[in-house]
Amino acid sequence: MPTLDPFGYNVIYNLLSLTVATMGAATLFFFFAPRVNARYKPAMIVTGLVTAIACYHYFQIRLSFEGAFTAQTVDGARAYVASGKPFNDFYRYADWLLTVPLLMVELIAVMALTKAESAKYLRVLIPAVVLMIILGYPGENAISTGGSSAAVWGWFVASFIPFLVVLAVLFTQLSAAIDKQPAEAQGLIKLARVVVLITWSFYPLAYIIGALGRTEEGALSATAVVGLQVGYTIADITAKAGFGVVIYFIARRKSELEGYETQGLPAAA
Amino acid sequence: MPTLDPFGYNVIYNLLSLTVATMGAATLFFFFAPRVNARYKPAMIVTGLVTAIACYHYFQIRLSFEGAFTAQTVDGARAYVASGKPFNDFYRYADWLLTVPLLMVELIAVMALTKAESAKYLRVLIPAVVLMIILGYPGENAISTGGSSAAVWGWFVASFIPFLVVLAVLFTQLSAAIDKQPAEAQGLIKLARVVVLITWSFYPLAYIIGALGRTEEGALSATAVVGLQVGYTIADITAKAGFGVVIYFIARRKSELEGYETQGLPAAA
Repeated sequence: MPTLDPFGYNVIYNLLSLTVATMGAATLFFFFAPRVNARYKPAMIVTGLVTAIACYHYFQIRLSFEGAFTAQTVDGARAYVASGKPFNDFYRYADWLLTVPLLMVELIAVMALTKAESAKYLRVLIPAVVLMIILGYPGENAISTGGSSAAVWGWFVASFIPFLVVLAVLFTQLSAAIDKQPAEAQGLIKLARVVVLITWSFYPLAYIIGALGRTEEGALSATAVVGLQVGYTIADITAKAGFGVVIYFIARRKSELEGYETQGLPAAA
Repeated sequence: MPTLDPFGYNVIYNLLSLTVATMGAATLFFFFAPRVNARYKPAMIVTGLVTAIACYHYFQIRLSFEGAFTAQTVDGARAYVASGKPFNDFYRYADWLLTVPLLMVELIAVMALTKAESAKYLRVLIPAVVLMIILGYPGENAISTGGSSAAVWGWFVASFIPFLVVLAVLFTQLSAAIDKQPAEAQGLIKLARVVVLITWSFYPLAYIIGALGRTEEGALSATAVVGLQVGYTIADITAKAGFGVVIYFIARRKSELEGYETQGLPAAA
C-alpha cells in the first residue's frame, strides 16, 4: 500500500463507514418493505439480504483498511504509511460472489413470473455473474500485488465477456417478459434494467482507474488506491441499495395495482 | 484537541453514550409504532431508520472521542490530553447526509399526500438539505483544524441559505397541504414544522459556540469542544427522536380518526 495523505485516507475511511450505515439502514427498510403485498416479499427479503451481506463486508473492509495503515509524521506533516498488514481486497469479491447472484434473483423475483420462466432466465444469469466475478479476481490481485499488465488486462477482458452475456439477456430475452408486466410497472422494471447497466459499469471503470494508476514498477499509487476504493464503494451503494429502492418501488406499484392484501379476509372499509 | 478536565470529558462521553441508548430505543419504538394504520407505516419506518443510522454514528463518535484522548496526571490532577489520534468529526456529517433527507421524507410521508404532491415538496426539500450539509462541512473542518475565520464564517453563511429555503417551503408552500389535512391533526403537523425550526436552530448555534470558542491562533478551547459536542448531541436527540415522537402522534391521531384497521375482522371492542 502506498502512503496516503490525511485527505485521501479520510475520504476512503469515511466513505467505508457511511456505507456500513447505508447498507444497514437499507436492510431494515427492505425487510419491513411497507405497503408491499406478500407475493413480492421474497424479492424484498432477497434485496435485504444483499445489503445485509454488504453491511458485514464493509464493516470488515473498514477494519482491514484501518489496520493496513499507521499514522506517522512524515516531513512534518501527518501521513498514513503502510503498516505491513495487507489490506484484504478479497472481502469485496466474497461480497460480490454472494450478492451479485442475489441481485439477479431479486430482479426476476419482483416480476413474479411463472416458475419455469424465472428458472429459464436465472439458469443463464447466475452462472454468468459468478463467472464474471471469479474471472475478475486474478486481475484485481495482479493490480494490488504488482502483477504483469498482461494479467491485469487479460483477466479484465475475460471477466467482461460474461458481463456482456448478462446485458444481452436483460436487454433482449427479458424484454418479452417485461412486455407482459402491468403497463404501469413496465417503466420501473425497464429502469431497474438500466440501473444494472449503469451501476455495473462503475466496477470496470474503478478497475481501469486502479490499473492505470500503477507506477512503472507495478506498485499502486495513492491516487489509484483512492480511485479504486471510492469507485467500488459508490458502485456498491448504487448497485445494491439504489437498485433495491427501484425493486421496492416496483413491488409497491404492483401491490397498489392489485389492491393491498387483506390476508384473504373481506377488505376493511 | 485541547486538554479537557474530567468534568468536560465526562459530560461529553456520557452524553454520547446516553444518545446511543436513546436512538436505539427510539428505533425499536418507531418500528413497532403501535396503534398506527398500515398507511402510515412507511413514515414510521423511515423515522426508525433515522434513529437507527444515528445510533450507529453515536456508537462510532463515542469510540473516536475515547481514542482521541489519553488520561494523564497534569499538575497533580487528572486530565484528558489529546492522544494524537484525530477525533473524526465527519461521522456527524455522514449521519446528517443520510438522515436529514429522511427527516423530510417522514414529515411528507405522514401527511399521506398524493404522489405528485409529495414529489413536488421533496424535489425542493431534499436537494436543499443535502446542500446545507455539504456546505457546512468545510466550515466545521476549518473550526477543528485551525482554519481562517473567513472560511469558518463564509461556509456558515453559504450553508445557512439552503436552510432558509427549507423553512420557506415548510412555512409557506406546505401550508396549503396542511389545510387539507383532518382538522384534528393539523395542530400536530404544525407542531412538527415548529420542531424542525427550533431543533434545527441548535445546529448553527452549536457551530457558533465552536467558532467563537477558538483561541487567537485558531485552536479549539476546551469550552468550545464541550459546547460544540453537547450542542450537536442535544440537537440530534430532539431533531431525530423528539421529532419522530411528534410524527408518531400525527400517525396515531390520523389512524384514530380513520378507524383502526381490523384486517377485515369485526373491530375489537
